[in-house]
Amino acid sequence: VNKPLLDVLDRRRRLPPPVWLMRQAGRYLPEYRALREKAGDFLSLVLTPELATEVTLQPIRRFGFDGAIVFSDILVVPLALGQLVTFAPGEGPLLEALNDRGAFGRIAIEFDHDRAKPVYETIRLVKAELDPAVALIGFCGAPWTVATYMIAGRGTPDQAPARSFAYRDRAGLDVLIDILVDASSAYLTAQLQAGADAVQIFDSWAGVLPPEEFAHWCIDPIRRIVANVRRNIAGAKIIGFPRGAGTLLARYGAEVRVDAIGLDWMVDRTFAREKVQSRVPVQGNLDPLALVAGGDALDRGVDAVLDGFAGGPFIFNLGHGILPETPIGHVERMLERVRVGKP
Amino acid sequence: VNKPLLDVLDRRRRLPPPVWLMRQAGRYLPEYRALREKAGDFLSLVLTPELATEVTLQPIRRFGFDGAIVFSDILVVPLALGQLVTFAPGEGPLLEALNDRGAFGRIAIEFDHDRAKPVYETIRLVKAELDPAVALIGFCGAPWTVATYMIAGRGTPDQAPARSFAYRDRAGLDVLIDILVDASSAYLTAQLQAGADAVQIFDSWAGVLPPEEFAHWCIDPIRRIVANVRRNIAGAKIIGFPRGAGTLLARYGAEVRVDAIGLDWMVDRTFAREKVQSRVPVQGNLDPLALVAGGDALDRGVDAVLDGFAGGPFIFNLGHGILPETPIGHVERMLERVRVGKP
Repeated sequence: VNKPLLDVLDRRRRLPPPVWLMRQAGRYLPEYRALREKAGDFLSLVLTPELATEVTLQPIRRFGFDGAIVFSDILVVPLALGQLVTFAPGEGPLLEALNDRGAFGRIAIEFDHDRAKPVYETIRLVKAELDPAVALIGFCGAPWTVATYMIAGRGTPDQAPARSFAYRDRAGLDVLIDILVDASSAYLTAQLQAGADAVQIFDSWAGVLPPEEFAHWCIDPIRRIVANVRRNIAGAKIIGFPRGAGTLLARYGAEVRVDAIGLDWMVDRTFAREKVQSRVPVQGNLDPLALVAGGDALDRGVDAVLDGFAGGPFIFNLGHGILPETPIGHVERMLERVRVGKP
Repeated sequence: VNKPLLDVLDRRRRLPPPVWLMRQAGRYLPEYRALREKAGDFLSLVLTPELATEVTLQPIRRFGFDGAIVFSDILVVPLALGQLVTFAPGEGPLLEALNDRGAFGRIAIEFDHDRAKPVYETIRLVKAELDPAVALIGFCGAPWTVATYMIAGRGTPDQAPARSFAYRDRAGLDVLIDILVDASSAYLTAQLQAGADAVQIFDSWAGVLPPEEFAHWCIDPIRRIVANVRRNIAGAKIIGFPRGAGTLLARYGAEVRVDAIGLDWMVDRTFAREKVQSRVPVQGNLDPLALVAGGDALDRGVDAVLDGFAGGPFIFNLGHGILPETPIGHVERMLERVRVGKP
């Protein structure tokens, strides 16, 4: 069976473009909120395959998206390296911060697949139930982004703790990044072996680095992961999402050999078409707040994205995760406009 | 007397490049902290000309920067429009939020120069004392950035309240932006008449908008301000700083007729050289955290900035404001490297 999303990753243009949304399994769905309440804490939901499977499939049943992304979290990698990770309700993640190189002894060098097993099991369960036209997407956080959380112990406005660490002890951060490159390579390989059709590498904090640091901490580790995964699985399909890369997107596109690049909503579309989509399929990039707003603002936003990218290989998505306050009706309106066209 | 900074604004290359730092009058200086303690709250310091003059001159005396920026705040404009603005210690600004168009009745349409008089007086006092080779810089916040604070009542991670307002009631936000264009034009004109040699327009939140919104809320209002100020004062020198504009910098550079463009530290320097500096002088863009780090990281950062931009008309600066934890010795080391070169 033909999967439109995989066609695009093979550099073919599809019209209408395939659609999925980052964080599509999440709090904006009443069926998610109901299940979440029963499951208890967030990590239990992620690490219980039957529940994670149900959550992964909820948005597919409701909206018929072309991609299902396994319900999980980028902090599964630190967990599988033995770092303490908790999710306080309404607070975001909290980790035992690795403030300096001396603290690295608290984590393992080897990725512990046993701890990630529930994710692989979820992929198997979803795959068994999923419409064969829908692509199943696994994922991990990029080493730099995961390192920012491991070092700071939480999210911060511009991840200054990790950036300072990089300036203070470059060789020390290299050690951590190397561990994360190996771990992420093993983790993505296992997700693909479990049945994921493609994987996405989320670099949510790529946008806080100067160009030389971006090349070292974002481009180089991801290039190595892509090579490792393809050495394990020939032809593995990989999407990169360097959020906030801005002018550095051209360099990312040229040097990281992914099959598609996710774009955030701030990107100039002429630039992205000429410097990125000319060599690799793109995915994105509606402002999640336009989807919250609905009405004319949503229609204009959708049209701008389609006018910008639907002329080439393209996957419709948001420029970042869908927000919890998004009305269901707005998602329906967006899908109608992407799939059927302007009324 | 020749002012190197103004030479660059006239599109002439200077070697070594003139240097100043955003927020150079601030908490990293012990002499500032001492005065701040005596003055009481932040707004009293801004609005007492003798104190603001002293603070403005402190970094010039210590470091001999080529530019002195008047000690003030971008929220003087909402203040002069009658909005309630307070600075809670350690909290950042708090304003009485304008949640919808109905709340606009709470502010004035006309900019009240009486409320901004202390700033003009500070400019006169600084000018009288300043080395004639040092350029005196006035400033305001860009309409979009000021509006984000007026609407949200405070800073937020990605200024979602103002972005949502823009989607919800475009015509309503146009009303506020028009008021701010007029107010900013009057305010910058008066600062130049009081003796400022140049003015800078800070668009700290330019980077959260999609391209179509960026054109409407960032480029268009600033273009109108520049035209208004130049109608009042022929040849007025204006620097634009669209922080986070990323790929949209090229469009900003082509459409906003400023005399120099400030660059944040994330910009790809090849892109900035080809798409921005080829038509307008640039200013920037060392990562403020590299200045905090010092040592090799600082030296490498300074060299990358110089290698990137010193071949054309260029003002050395940070990519954002200097951080309070910056050691004085690191500023000295940076200046030595910019002015004298590598040891």
